[in-house]
Amino acid sequence: MKYGARNQIKAKVTSIKSDEVMSLVKFEVIPPAKMASVITFESLADMDLKVGEEIRLVVKAINVLPVKD
Amino acid sequence: MKYGARNQIKAKVTSIKSDEVMSLVKFEVIPPAKMASVITFESLADMDLKVGEEIRLVVKAINVLPVKD
Amino acid sequence: MKYGARNQIKAKVTSIKSDEVMSLVKFEVIPPAKMASVITFESLADMDLKVGEEIRLVVKAINVLPVKD
Amino acid sequence: MKYGARNQIKAKVTSIKSDEVMSLVKFEVIPPAKMASVITFESLADMDLKVGEEIRLVVKAINVLPVKD
Amino acid sequence: MKYGARNQIKAKVTSIKSDEVMSLVKFEVIPPAKMASVITFESLADMDLKVGEEIRLVVKAINVLPVKD
Amino acid sequence: MKYGARNQIKAKVTSIKSDEVMSLVKFEVIPPAKMASVITFESLADMDLKVGEEIRLVVKAINVLPVKD
Repeated sequence: MKYGARNQIKAKVTSIKSDEVMSLVKFEVIPPAKMASVITFESLADMDLKVGEEIRLVVKAINVLPVKD
Repeated sequence: MKYGARNQIKAKVTSIKSDEVMSLVKFEVIPPAKMASVITFESLADMDLKVGEEIRLVVKAINVLPVKD
Repeated sequence: MKYGARNQIKAKVTSIKSDEVMSLVKFEVIPPAKMASVITFESLADMDLKVGEEIRLVVKAINVLPVKD
Repeated sequence: MKYGARNQIKAKVTSIKSDEVMSLVKFEVIPPAKMASVITFESLADMDLKVGEEIRLVVKAINVLPVKD
Repeated sequence: MKYGARNQIKAKVTSIKSDEVMSLVKFEVIPPAKMASVITFESLADMDLKVGEEIRLVVKAINVLPVKD
Repeated sequence: MKYGARNQIKAKVTSIKSDEVMSLVKFEVIPPAKMASVITFESLADMDLKVGEEIRLVVKAINVLPVKD
């Protein structure tokens, strides 16, 4: 199985909460984990990101797709 | 600083690659890390997700927003 | 009317379900339909995608925008 | 393999175009195909969508994830 | 023409930059403009958002769809 | 604080509506505001966008991230 996505993170389900249409599922990431981000070159230049820097990755929960083997 | 997003992951920049418009940045996640996903209740039911299960989280790199303090 | 999006698919509404904030609408695609995907070149190389191959396109429902003339 | 996404469409690769960071892949959808959309209840009410109506589904190519078995 | 999206902002094109696959287009918003955000109730509670507060709305450029009449 | 996103719009909260999992928040944009969109070069060519043109920017509310200092 191969995905057209750079981020494929192993994680364990820790909680589930639902209403009629939507559900919120929470996970604990199983390390080691790598991530990747695509941004405009302009944003990269504005942020002045450099290899080795520690930053924060913000992701809206709606953009996280759980996949179960 | 407070974000309207469930996922805020600490990470270290490991590589940067750019063309004229877009850039791809890679990171190593600094554990421990938690994540959250919002899916339809229907998808949750179809997947039969349960607390404690180990699954995979797939995220397109374009949906990952780096933030630098 | 011109859209800055590659995917513009004709479809027929088959069901609607709502709660107070969100709604889930289902459709039957009216063939023929074409789709397009933008991924990183790295993901393309990893997947080893070739013209003529049959694959699956996964799209979160939240990323589908209905437009009515 | 189970995905936390309502849209899982069979499709055939028809063309591939790449630059250094990003690639654009095109597909022909293999019918029959169903799709689903999540919108706010407010948008649903404004659109006055009804079962049986024919509409258009607009999806940015960046939100389409190819998966290969 | 009706869209299943809460944000429909009038804007004027101020610049365009392209490489082979992707383009970055910039705009000046024509006021008055309203916007809407859907977040989890949990994020709302964590942010402690209140009517009347001034905040910042962050949107990745990839999620902005230009439409031309 | 620096974000890997082209759109950072000042806005004032005008209303909030919630159910158990999701919330819809509305805002009045504080002018002047600029926006940016990333689309495929193909979409740009199809739309025949030109500097100075007035168009509409459509954004699903789910893709709008509120940030509070």
